[in-house]
Amino acid sequence: MIYNLGKGKDENFILAEDYFNKDNFRKYESIMCLGNGYLGLRNTNEEDYVSQVRGLYISGCFNRFHETEVTELPNCPDVIGMKIWLNEKEFDLTQFTILNYERTLNIRSGLATRIVEIKSKSQERFILKFKKFVSMDNLHLICQKVEILPLDDDVDFKLCTGIDGQVTNSSVQHFSEGDKRLFNDKIMQSCFKTTESKIDFVLNSSVKFNTEDYFSQIQMDRRKIFMNFKKKIKKGDTLIFEKFSTIHTSRDKENENLLLEDFKKKSKEELNEIIKYDFEELFLKSEDCFLKNIWNKSDIKIKSINSFDQFAVRFSIYHLHIMTPAHDSRMSIAAKGLSGEGYKGHVFWDTEIFCLPYFIYEHPEIARKLLEYRFNSLISARKKASSGGYLGAQYPWESAWIDDGEVTPVWGAADIITGKSTKIWSGFIEIHVTSDVVYAIEQYFKIARDLDFMKRYGYEIIFETALFWTSRLEYNENLDLYEINDVMGPDEYKEHVNNNAFTNQMAYYNMSLALKYFYKLKSNDEDTFKILENSINISSIAEKIEKIINKIYLQRPNKNLIIPQDDTYLNLKSIDLTPFKNQKHVGEIFKFYNLKQVNEIQVSKQADIMMMLYLLEDEFDYETIKANYDYYEPRTLHDSSLSLSTHCILAKKMNHMELAYELFHKSIKIDLGENMQSSNDGIHAASIGGIWRATILGFCGIKNIDEILEIDPRLPNEWDMIEFNLVFRGNSMNLLITKNTIAIVLYENKEVKIKIKDEIYTVNDEMKFKY
Amino acid sequence: MIYNLGKGKDENFILAEDYFNKDNFRKYESIMCLGNGYLGLRNTNEEDYVSQVRGLYISGCFNRFHETEVTELPNCPDVIGMKIWLNEKEFDLTQFTILNYERTLNIRSGLATRIVEIKSKSQERFILKFKKFVSMDNLHLICQKVEILPLDDDVDFKLCTGIDGQVTNSSVQHFSEGDKRLFNDKIMQSCFKTTESKIDFVLNSSVKFNTEDYFSQIQMDRRKIFMNFKKKIKKGDTLIFEKFSTIHTSRDKENENLLLEDFKKKSKEELNEIIKYDFEELFLKSEDCFLKNIWNKSDIKIKSINSFDQFAVRFSIYHLHIMTPAHDSRMSIAAKGLSGEGYKGHVFWDTEIFCLPYFIYEHPEIARKLLEYRFNSLISARKKASSGGYLGAQYPWESAWIDDGEVTPVWGAADIITGKSTKIWSGFIEIHVTSDVVYAIEQYFKIARDLDFMKRYGYEIIFETALFWTSRLEYNENLDLYEINDVMGPDEYKEHVNNNAFTNQMAYYNMSLALKYFYKLKSNDEDTFKILENSINISSIAEKIEKIINKIYLQRPNKNLIIPQDDTYLNLKSIDLTPFKNQKHVGEIFKFYNLKQVNEIQVSKQADIMMMLYLLEDEFDYETIKANYDYYEPRTLHDSSLSLSTHCILAKKMNHMELAYELFHKSIKIDLGENMQSSNDGIHAASIGGIWRATILGFCGIKNIDEILEIDPRLPNEWDMIEFNLVFRGNSMNLLITKNTIAIVLYENKEVKIKIKDEIYTVNDEMKFKY
Repeated sequence: MIYNLGKGKDENFILAEDYFNKDNFRKYESIMCLGNGYLGLRNTNEEDYVSQVRGLYISGCFNRFHETEVTELPNCPDVIGMKIWLNEKEFDLTQFTILNYERTLNIRSGLATRIVEIKSKSQERFILKFKKFVSMDNLHLICQKVEILPLDDDVDFKLCTGIDGQVTNSSVQHFSEGDKRLFNDKIMQSCFKTTESKIDFVLNSSVKFNTEDYFSQIQMDRRKIFMNFKKKIKKGDTLIFEKFSTIHTSRDKENENLLLEDFKKKSKEELNEIIKYDFEELFLKSEDCFLKNIWNKSDIKIKSINSFDQFAVRFSIYHLHIMTPAHDSRMSIAAKGLSGEGYKGHVFWDTEIFCLPYFIYEHPEIARKLLEYRFNSLISARKKASSGGYLGAQYPWESAWIDDGEVTPVWGAADIITGKSTKIWSGFIEIHVTSDVVYAIEQYFKIARDLDFMKRYGYEIIFETALFWTSRLEYNENLDLYEINDVMGPDEYKEHVNNNAFTNQMAYYNMSLALKYFYKLKSNDEDTFKILENSINISSIAEKIEKIINKIYLQRPNKNLIIPQDDTYLNLKSIDLTPFKNQKHVGEIFKFYNLKQVNEIQVSKQADIMMMLYLLEDEFDYETIKANYDYYEPRTLHDSSLSLSTHCILAKKMNHMELAYELFHKSIKIDLGENMQSSNDGIHAASIGGIWRATILGFCGIKNIDEILEIDPRLPNEWDMIEFNLVFRGNSMNLLITKNTIAIVLYENKEVKIKIKDEIYTVNDEMKFKY
Repeated sequence: MIYNLGKGKDENFILAEDYFNKDNFRKYESIMCLGNGYLGLRNTNEEDYVSQVRGLYISGCFNRFHETEVTELPNCPDVIGMKIWLNEKEFDLTQFTILNYERTLNIRSGLATRIVEIKSKSQERFILKFKKFVSMDNLHLICQKVEILPLDDDVDFKLCTGIDGQVTNSSVQHFSEGDKRLFNDKIMQSCFKTTESKIDFVLNSSVKFNTEDYFSQIQMDRRKIFMNFKKKIKKGDTLIFEKFSTIHTSRDKENENLLLEDFKKKSKEELNEIIKYDFEELFLKSEDCFLKNIWNKSDIKIKSINSFDQFAVRFSIYHLHIMTPAHDSRMSIAAKGLSGEGYKGHVFWDTEIFCLPYFIYEHPEIARKLLEYRFNSLISARKKASSGGYLGAQYPWESAWIDDGEVTPVWGAADIITGKSTKIWSGFIEIHVTSDVVYAIEQYFKIARDLDFMKRYGYEIIFETALFWTSRLEYNENLDLYEINDVMGPDEYKEHVNNNAFTNQMAYYNMSLALKYFYKLKSNDEDTFKILENSINISSIAEKIEKIINKIYLQRPNKNLIIPQDDTYLNLKSIDLTPFKNQKHVGEIFKFYNLKQVNEIQVSKQADIMMMLYLLEDEFDYETIKANYDYYEPRTLHDSSLSLSTHCILAKKMNHMELAYELFHKSIKIDLGENMQSSNDGIHAASIGGIWRATILGFCGIKNIDEILEIDPRLPNEWDMIEFNLVFRGNSMNLLITKNTIAIVLYENKEVKIKIKDEIYTVNDEMKFKY
């Protein structure tokens, strides 16, 4: 088991590892990641191990190492690492006998701890306690505290720690080295600049002892500045030292207009103030922000036979916050958050479809920021559209900095047949992300009722993307229909297909929405209409849409109600997928078939048709959804972390509650399960978002229908109760759902329309329903 | 003890480590380095450890990561690494009980071996044998062989190995990634290109088992291509596999005019031929070259009470060969050879003053190549001179590729007082290297009598460098003398001194030599004279020299015969240097004084005046040399690997035989001693060359006086006999020296003039002398 309950206020807030296994490091580094949306810090040990991968990522600070690579989030210089010697023996748990070991992450407060009792080969015992946190109060601050207690004899203690710029992204170096210096024997400062994007990074670090009586000396090496400390610790005495480090970049809004010298000075002075406090004081400030910003607002309480459910939902909330750059709308959520190198810090549809629902319902102000990122990166979308010969705005499959354009890498893993690298086609032909963004905007608008957002940003995106689709559609004379050919749908096993149902349907949705708003604005909001008419000529866009909207090729259910995933899928051969349905690692099928062969089998990587039926469920009847679920689910390997939560929600819809709960658990286990490699390169943001989505939008059945909040719960058998807060159209409320009751308490006494079963109620303060 | 004797033909050829200590890895990687002058391979373990630093360097293939750094020799993708699992347990000696351990390097044949017997936590014993060599027959080839024998039970064996481009120079990445591919399930190929110098690297690698019955599969990762193998090994059966890897670059002469695609193909086909042989067959070919090229020609046999002396001298010969790019005169010897990142693969005066004597006397054809490098890099020397506003050719303090110019880094270690990085002034003001090169040319010419070299290359260098000095000298009106101010001599503790005795004296030497050849050519070799007159106007150079040669400020002995090291040295304060004279690590003094403070103390880093008195010993009388030795040696910390061998030779000259032998041993111990960190970043080329120099030029007293070979031996008390070969003016000979006899055997019956004591003899075939 990789979690424990915690006690008292920490009950169900503790993730723990109770035995040392160096083969599991990379998983724990990711799932126990620390962060605050500005920075993400992999939870590595202070000492070095071969299997350990240090990681510190600052949101939005992309760099491209070389023209043969794509831009990525650089792994920043490390401040966590500490070499500790006890009587000349370097501390490293493989070299001592471990008498006691516990490592925890408190997700309520963001505190990581490690307590070890060890025995040296010469039979001396020591207790070492390590604590660290990334401040939620000061986004630039990382704090560490170490306590060392020799139990059997005095010990010669040595420490070497500082700022280590010998860090890479799997060997790729993103920084050139700048000045490094020790100020007043106290503050180490080291500067770096990204090689291509020319972003300055300034790190400051300082170490503080609970005694004056120690030896210290500065040392420098290539890309390294560190201090050596020596001290004799008496048997029974506890040596305590604390290390405070900050990181600032020239991309930070507050430094944008500062000269490097000035922000170096400012950051040094800031740390000089910080070190007047001690670790515990700084921790309390950070913990306070965790409570205020996260738990007081959006905790979920679940009474389940399985307490893991309670923990898992909180785990998802914790990660949703530490990975999200809520401070800056020029950035968005990466597919692995800020917890690892996987997917290079790039932004996918994962943000809008899988993570955004949480923020829309819980922190609409953050949801807005994330959507503003898409507005700010319209420059990239316009670039991508025009480079393909299209009009309007086409969002890149993978996004990075707002003007980077398409950043999907081109080459991937080995093809087992040819021995060559496989070409990654997503960046060229996986085009549905553009309408996914629009879908999310409409969701946000309907739920948050943020008209200001729409006027400033939303409408422009909707029209510009619709314009893209009008130019992307291809007229087929024989059919007198507009097709979308040569694409990849969400099912990435199928390259170069024609008329992927999901892609076409979502494009249709996107264009229809533009048309709806065109007429709405024309008749109801002359000012906005005029502005958009002047800036992007929406009349001409509407005209283009109207010409073709009714001739878009949409896949229709066949006589068995099955909607073809694309023009060819239903004619492909079927094979026995059992071995792959139970796969322990992603991509198992590619150890037996290459992509060309997989392309010719009725097998899907993830929800494709099912994603369409979920997102646009009101467009399809229950029978169609069910027939397709029964057809496609057995053909889906869930070989993507995006697949399970959607299937869970659909299973609940079809009252397959055991299956739904099983899928919910499988989805949790993508990061929290027994597979010790799955999260090596970072947590799975979409899966993390999916846990919340399955819980609230799935089991609790939360859905908006225009101005009405629908609640259609069906709790798993294992659950007795779930309680959570929501914000719907500006109204904060508390919901408590049991097996057969729904209790709603409004925090602000504003009126909300609630739909339960087929009844619509108006709630003013509180109300309780049976269902 | 870090060596053993070996037996039979290997007696005194084996360097061994008999216990496992991961803290010593980096030293052994360097001193047990493999290579052939084309490539150098740090001798790392197949499995990974935190304290291990893999290294593969190809001579001359420099790259500059960023404008803020200097060019360096990139650490190439690794082929040595192998992950081995025994019953799912990853092989790593810290995780098993070690029952037997021995690791050896055979310097006679270049074979590295490691034999371990281990016991797993579940009490299963295994014997693993690892062998590897870098071929001296095919300069591009690295061969490995592994044998695994389970003693107690069958075992599930897994192997993962290939080409790993996730290698850096202390985190600096020099390559962009090119194609990678597996050909015919057999040959992995991976291509890289240096980011700035655009040199293509093509690596091929193939793994071969002693059985057909195993599972294999290709895998790729970022900058990695590798294969996974699985096999059940029966108890008592030995699994054997061999891995052959090649590396080729577009800098290789044979690839210079090939398209990348062609040399990829060629190198793949080459490996396809190679793998038709097995490890032992390929090893025999390589061993044969070791014998033919090195040991048959230039072995030294010493009968000493201390067999370490015999080994150490061979150790120096081994390393002198594996670090020297004898194949290409566009390259030279780096300060750390090809054994580590230290000094970035740069070429210093170490080559000409410390390493070249071996090659001049033993392999004059290689000595010539090394000096041709200086001719080929005249472009750099002219660039440096003119960028400083000077005429002619000034060699860079540190050299890399022939047209790179000055490549000395500008910033070094921390200043303990200011907390800032220390500025490295060598590249700006340590200028004596220019005349050191000329000194070496004259030595080569006198000993090898290679007039062709002089006509093609030597004269031009001598005149062009002399021209530089004429422009570098500064006229002092008060003294009516020409000074050289603001320099650093060999004693790098002293920055910005005026009239460093060594620098001025060597500049004078350089100009005098030019003048000598000017008149010699004018009167004896009209053709060469005309050519040089036309190309570089030597008359005008000679005129410039003559104007000032007699007014050059040369430091003169004071009344105590002490020659001032520079204008101020003798007036500086003296401190007690005892703690630093016994230092275990380099630079100890800088832990107590910063450079500014050291600048104000009578303390020298290394031989400075003494180097002058050694190189130009015929210009000074014995009393002066002795007086200065007695004055300066106590003030010299030998804080450079360049210092000891010179002092050893001088101590022998002054008949301090115990001291000389002690210094000889200290000099050996720079790399072979108990300090387990000293060679971390590579062996010390100058010290390695110094061991040979102290042995042959020191104890055996070999010296040339124009056409005469002087032999003035004085063997250490511990030695009974030394036997070695020499080539003097084209004559190969064998010398056998005992405590009181010298026996000479000429191999080719040509006449050689020999001076012993004050007699000159003419030897035709063989002769024996008493002394």
